[in-house]
Amino acid sequence: MRMLDIIDTKRNGGRLTDEQIQYFVDGVVDGSIEDYQISALLMAIYFQGMTAAEQTKLTMAMLKSGDQLDLSSIPGIKVDKHSTGGVGDKTSLPLAAMVAALGIPVPMISGRGLGHTGGTLDKLEAIPGYCVELTENEFIAQVKKIGLAIVGATGQIAPADARIYGLRDVTDTVDSIPLIASSILSKKLASGTDALVIDVKTGAGAFMQKLEDAQKLVHALVEIANGAGVKSMAIISDMNQPLGNKIGNSLEIEESIDVLKGNGPADLMELLLTLGSQMVVLGKKADTLAEARQKLQQTIDDGSALNKFKQMIIEQGGDANVINDYSVMPQAKYRIPIQATQSGVVTQIKANEMGIASMLLGGGRSTKDDKLDYSVGLVLNHKIGDEVKTGDTLVTVYSNQEDITQVEQLIRDNFLIGEHVQKTALVREIITD
Amino acid sequence: MRMLDIIDTKRNGGRLTDEQIQYFVDGVVDGSIEDYQISALLMAIYFQGMTAAEQTKLTMAMLKSGDQLDLSSIPGIKVDKHSTGGVGDKTSLPLAAMVAALGIPVPMISGRGLGHTGGTLDKLEAIPGYCVELTENEFIAQVKKIGLAIVGATGQIAPADARIYGLRDVTDTVDSIPLIASSILSKKLASGTDALVIDVKTGAGAFMQKLEDAQKLVHALVEIANGAGVKSMAIISDMNQPLGNKIGNSLEIEESIDVLKGNGPADLMELLLTLGSQMVVLGKKADTLAEARQKLQQTIDDGSALNKFKQMIIEQGGDANVINDYSVMPQAKYRIPIQATQSGVVTQIKANEMGIASMLLGGGRSTKDDKLDYSVGLVLNHKIGDEVKTGDTLVTVYSNQEDITQVEQLIRDNFLIGEHVQKTALVREIITD
Repeated sequence: MRMLDIIDTKRNGGRLTDEQIQYFVDGVVDGSIEDYQISALLMAIYFQGMTAAEQTKLTMAMLKSGDQLDLSSIPGIKVDKHSTGGVGDKTSLPLAAMVAALGIPVPMISGRGLGHTGGTLDKLEAIPGYCVELTENEFIAQVKKIGLAIVGATGQIAPADARIYGLRDVTDTVDSIPLIASSILSKKLASGTDALVIDVKTGAGAFMQKLEDAQKLVHALVEIANGAGVKSMAIISDMNQPLGNKIGNSLEIEESIDVLKGNGPADLMELLLTLGSQMVVLGKKADTLAEARQKLQQTIDDGSALNKFKQMIIEQGGDANVINDYSVMPQAKYRIPIQATQSGVVTQIKANEMGIASMLLGGGRSTKDDKLDYSVGLVLNHKIGDEVKTGDTLVTVYSNQEDITQVEQLIRDNFLIGEHVQKTALVREIITD
Repeated sequence: MRMLDIIDTKRNGGRLTDEQIQYFVDGVVDGSIEDYQISALLMAIYFQGMTAAEQTKLTMAMLKSGDQLDLSSIPGIKVDKHSTGGVGDKTSLPLAAMVAALGIPVPMISGRGLGHTGGTLDKLEAIPGYCVELTENEFIAQVKKIGLAIVGATGQIAPADARIYGLRDVTDTVDSIPLIASSILSKKLASGTDALVIDVKTGAGAFMQKLEDAQKLVHALVEIANGAGVKSMAIISDMNQPLGNKIGNSLEIEESIDVLKGNGPADLMELLLTLGSQMVVLGKKADTLAEARQKLQQTIDDGSALNKFKQMIIEQGGDANVINDYSVMPQAKYRIPIQATQSGVVTQIKANEMGIASMLLGGGRSTKDDKLDYSVGLVLNHKIGDEVKTGDTLVTVYSNQEDITQVEQLIRDNFLIGEHVQKTALVREIITD
């Protein structure tokens, strides 16, 4: 077999065989295929696409190029969730607790953030003592014991993806649906989950800005996951404005706990119940999405989800006092209100720019080695569609510097007030098959 | 400027600016752009193509990346010819002599062959003593003196092309019209010619097998050359069967001299007069192609072209006795006839396979370092459309081995006799603007 023929097949719009895809992934991992041939194939894939079968084979080959967790010793249907990410998206934290409270094992492997805000692991580390680095055995033991763990990846996950991703980044082949989908799932499926719920974001603040692209990606992800034997459902949700009201690490833990106490903001609650009901149906603890939704609401009403979250913090060494006292987490020195200079309706809160504002305050990383300031961030006192009057606080900036001129300007330029607005639905599409 | 943005522009179907193309070519030459980014751009060009302006700029930037000859000290309009190459194509040799005999300076820089048969330089070296390696000054002095020289390239011609060509070969981006055209002309225009006639071959034995591809290439070549200020005309000619009757190095010198003595085969003569009249019109020694054709015929009838060829051989140190005695060139030990085993009409003589047969006899190179056997080759006793009878000699094999079983089989499999045939015109298209 020759890499040149593989490039030629794809360049000419043909389908790669399983053997060709395996040969390619093997060559990526063992170094026998040169960068220039890999990037030629990536560009050919960008133009010619891949069939569902090709995408699944590519994902599986990349997945198997690295370590995989074996969760078979944990009884029950393990359900995980993946989101393509967005500003203010702390969904994983309350969601995992709510689903686990219904007896579905949730072994969640999460990541750190680059750009914008911290990732799920960064947020959890805002809780003093919380340890995200468990061994495989500790991780499995904790899920067996309390049905829930949120940790970082151990071992070498999908090394083929690491090399391919590095090349995509410098060869302008990032935004190819088959390459995005196989990259996401080769890493996600390494967690050994039985079922997966996927949240693809769309809108100005999302990687997939156009709904049409989000639709293509979500279908590719569901097809691949199902093809890999991992039952999956998905949604497409809006990321034009940040999710919930709080952006920042400590602040997003606060909002997560607020949710579990029954005080979550409406948009976040809606997303949680939508994604959660898919997880509960996949985990076979409800027959319909409506039934699952009711049961999930119950875990909040009866305190079982909050209790599950507390159990997890304790198991992973965190300070459980955080549940009742947010001040055990790092606190920002200044809380600076940004007030409306005109009356009207909030028409835009650009998610991307709010994320950058939080990053500039120290809440996100611009390079991999940046240290995070957990305490800083933004509280959005209003969301799109709210009526505001001159002098109302639009955003409260949590900062450790008194001078926030640059951040304030960025917020003002991207938190817009007008006369009327057409609100976009949060949940744009639900895919259940 | 960033290479990633250049890839992105082309990938998305945009036009590269002159500055972007210059940045790319500079980076190719100085090594600041990595192979993987070059190959990503090449694949994007494969899919998105290039405008005439982009192709011309790319060609000029590659041309200027290396050494260029300055022929301005030679008076007159210098005219050169380029062919995409084919089996039995010795056109350059008599053509240069015929055109030079009309007072048009022909400073021709030719190449060696890889695969099939030798290149123009290899053929000339079949003449004992003939030296193809002149210094730039010697080359110019000879053209000033006798109006004609055929030599190999000196200096470093288009180093950007060398790197790009190497990558195209391994990334499946060879067959892209803008990349083919810029590669050909960045090298060809380095000769410093004022005008250029181009012969793009089409058919089973040509690089551009489909007429449609040949048309695209010929138009790209003419556009680029004209855009570079080098006036050009072109033809598309058939390469389904070999050109002329003789294939091999000594044998093609023989046939070239036969032409100049007025004994050339019909197809070769037709091609010579067609290409030659374009050269003569471009060289302003005739107003119309018809007038040019007459004048060229005259150079054969009056012996002036043969004399010009002889002068060139003498100037470049070759044994001019070759004109009257072909046996001064290396002679093959065996001349083995391959006879028809049935009667009928010659329907196919596959050019590619006849070239391989000649190579297997030792007349062509399979690797760059192979030494050529000038004496071997094939004489085609019949061409497509000829009626033959059982026992007629179809091909005479000039060999230094007695056992030619493999070569004979290859010839028999690809020299076909049938009941009738539709002959293809040799000159398929003439492009004069």
